Amino acid sequence: ILKQDNETLLGLLAEEHHADIAELLEDLNLEEATYIIKLLDSEITSDILMEMDEDDREKVLKNLSSKEIAKELDELDTDDAADMIAELPEERQEKVISKIEDEEHKADIKELLKYDENTAGGLMAKELVKVYENWNVLKCVREMRAQAEFVTRVHSIYVVDEKEELKGRLSLKDLLVTSTKTHISEIYIPKVDSANVHDKAEDVARVMQKYDLEAIPVVDDKNHLLGRITIDDIVDVIKDEADKDYQMAAGLSQDVEADDTLWQHTRARLPWLFLGLLGGIGAASIMGGFEDLISKHAVLFFFTPLIAATAGNVGVQSSAIIVQGLANNDLKGSIGERLFKEFSLSLINGLALSLFLLLFTWIWKGNMLTSIAISISLFSVIVVAGIIGTFIPLFLNKRDIDPALATGPFITTSNDIFGILIYFWIAKMVLGI
Amino acid sequence: ILKQDNETLLGLLAEEHHADIAELLEDLNLEEATYIIKLLDSEITSDILMEMDEDDREKVLKNLSSKEIAKELDELDTDDAADMIAELPEERQEKVISKIEDEEHKADIKELLKYDENTAGGLMAKELVKVYENWNVLKCVREMRAQAEFVTRVHSIYVVDEKEELKGRLSLKDLLVTSTKTHISEIYIPKVDSANVHDKAEDVARVMQKYDLEAIPVVDDKNHLLGRITIDDIVDVIKDEADKDYQMAAGLSQDVEADDTLWQHTRARLPWLFLGLLGGIGAASIMGGFEDLISKHAVLFFFTPLIAATAGNVGVQSSAIIVQGLANNDLKGSIGERLFKEFSLSLINGLALSLFLLLFTWIWKGNMLTSIAISISLFSVIVVAGIIGTFIPLFLNKRDIDPALATGPFITTSNDIFGILIYFWIAKMVLGI
Repeated sequence: ILKQDNETLLGLLAEEHHADIAELLEDLNLEEATYIIKLLDSEITSDILMEMDEDDREKVLKNLSSKEIAKELDELDTDDAADMIAELPEERQEKVISKIEDEEHKADIKELLKYDENTAGGLMAKELVKVYENWNVLKCVREMRAQAEFVTRVHSIYVVDEKEELKGRLSLKDLLVTSTKTHISEIYIPKVDSANVHDKAEDVARVMQKYDLEAIPVVDDKNHLLGRITIDDIVDVIKDEADKDYQMAAGLSQDVEADDTLWQHTRARLPWLFLGLLGGIGAASIMGGFEDLISKHAVLFFFTPLIAATAGNVGVQSSAIIVQGLANNDLKGSIGERLFKEFSLSLINGLALSLFLLLFTWIWKGNMLTSIAISISLFSVIVVAGIIGTFIPLFLNKRDIDPALATGPFITTSNDIFGILIYFWIAKMVLGI
Repeated sequence: ILKQDNETLLGLLAEEHHADIAELLEDLNLEEATYIIKLLDSEITSDILMEMDEDDREKVLKNLSSKEIAKELDELDTDDAADMIAELPEERQEKVISKIEDEEHKADIKELLKYDENTAGGLMAKELVKVYENWNVLKCVREMRAQAEFVTRVHSIYVVDEKEELKGRLSLKDLLVTSTKTHISEIYIPKVDSANVHDKAEDVARVMQKYDLEAIPVVDDKNHLLGRITIDDIVDVIKDEADKDYQMAAGLSQDVEADDTLWQHTRARLPWLFLGLLGGIGAASIMGGFEDLISKHAVLFFFTPLIAATAGNVGVQSSAIIVQGLANNDLKGSIGERLFKEFSLSLINGLALSLFLLLFTWIWKGNMLTSIAISISLFSVIVVAGIIGTFIPLFLNKRDIDPALATGPFITTSNDIFGILIYFWIAKMVLGI
């Protein structure tokens, strides 16, 4: 990178999309990135900054003055501006806000900062096109042209009454096809889905997906129009939710990316590994308690990894199905019905697997009684693990805890221990010791 | 449900959104659902059918005549119509297509059926608003009104030359603000992202997400405009991809929902459980080979579940991070760098966990040599599992196999066996037997 030749550099970058420049900057070192950000116009850099990875953006922002940041914010939509400010340390937030020049923009951003980031309020932008029901189409088009300058994309035009209460919506298409003298109140569509400002982000995502909406207006408890949420923000919510569930299932305790530091990786991975270790120690202690079996029935000990693994697998499978069902909101029937279905399923799977194991161990070791003991244990473990795997996420969900926790190492580890305990207990009974 | 009183029923349903009616029908039995579909106007029922679960829709379609289905298709956008036809048995497809009345619609649907469903061609719709660069704004608005009737939502207006080659786009907003005599060639935006009709659906999703697009035009190899893809279809692609990865990680071998039949569940779950069982039998055989150890060092056998579980956990963690990095396209650096990073990380995690285990086993059993053997084994297993977990998904990806396979039971099971083998092998060496 030629640091000297600003003209050439600007020329080169002018051709690129801001998302591509953002990727480029992430590959540069901090000074170079800051240098380029300062060189470019804030109209472009604000978009570039929004596209950058959160960690990288934070570092660049640290190198900018409050005034420079305020300038970037002036160029951003209110929702993006609020998101960016929220990442700064608190004392810095106030300084930056005080430097924003546009008073209305400032007030909007301040309002958005009040909402929790996982609610409709935290997702919405204040930019929208709004018309009053007593206007006619001509006035409407004129006002819209003025308003549309501040709105990146016009999805729907929202219709409000004089109290700012949401009445309905207009489509640009309808507006194109109607005579200019028509009153808005005659042509607007009164049926409009809206989200309450305190709704959970996930719920808004679900509604927008279900009804295929590209934007949804956000209202307060009194139906006053506050802002709107667009589908691109919802795409991020859906992606984040899915990533979170996936990481949970893979035993990562926090959001971690391949390019994060070793320290971040250690923090994300070590806790669950440690939990797994404790589980393993628990299993070892249990087996220690059955040490007297070892002289007569050493073969029992050979099958502990099999029992533990199967318990874990069955549990994760049934939990994952429930977690996905909850996420997609398509679980029907009562908990009892669910558990009964899982029970029937475990009977089928358990029978198939334990009969196979019975045959194998019998042929291998030739001891029918031990084989029966191992197979009955496997069968019981599968049934118990399946029921626990179904029950835990439903239970967590009832308690308003993220049910995806149930697919994580916590439950897997418990299932392992539980499985081994059942195994030796049943084996001891069957073998009559 | 009153089957007699059609009037009342129609009145009730008229108030509901088609997505809600679809949910309602899924809860009814097949005859009732078919009855209601036949009762309602095809303008509404086509939307209802599209919102229904694939399995339920299939059943209802079986009860409709080819002509009735053709009527539904007439009401749908080409992309949805093609999707619906693709679900029918092949002989039926032709019958239904021949009954579609609108010749242009029929030709469009036939064209779309040629594309693979996982490509841009399989996602796109033929409906779009297209203007020629030599038109002026007035002509453009007039033609658009006519075209817009067939397009559910206007996102962008695409500009083509007389050879139908894509030149750029117009925003509705710009059109609102320009005088009617201006030529399109003067005001269109020549920079427009487009997708090739053979691009993979995932790649299109990535581009649209990266550039925050709400619609993207689809072209053939010669840049002829063929159709467009809208963000709502992309939302489904993203969701499906994420679900697939999640199911893979949870050990479900095919897409299965909580409400599917027992048989479908068994087919999705039993294969991986069986694989796990074979793995367990493998582990048991390995341990059988070390049976001579059992008399002197029974404690070694107590720790096999711990070793196997840790190997599995470490492997899944590192695979999951690579799989997510690949999915989000943000992996940088060579395979070598990646492996080195994972190696360093395994050293840290391995050291922490094995030191803890060393202390515990020493205090518990008081035999320093056994404790050292167990801890060194744990350490080695963590390092090996981490490296395998990183390497396998990168390798699969190079071979164009879905890397998410690496987070599934196949690798976990191999890691288990591998871990136990390393464990006993190292233990034997350290204990000098």
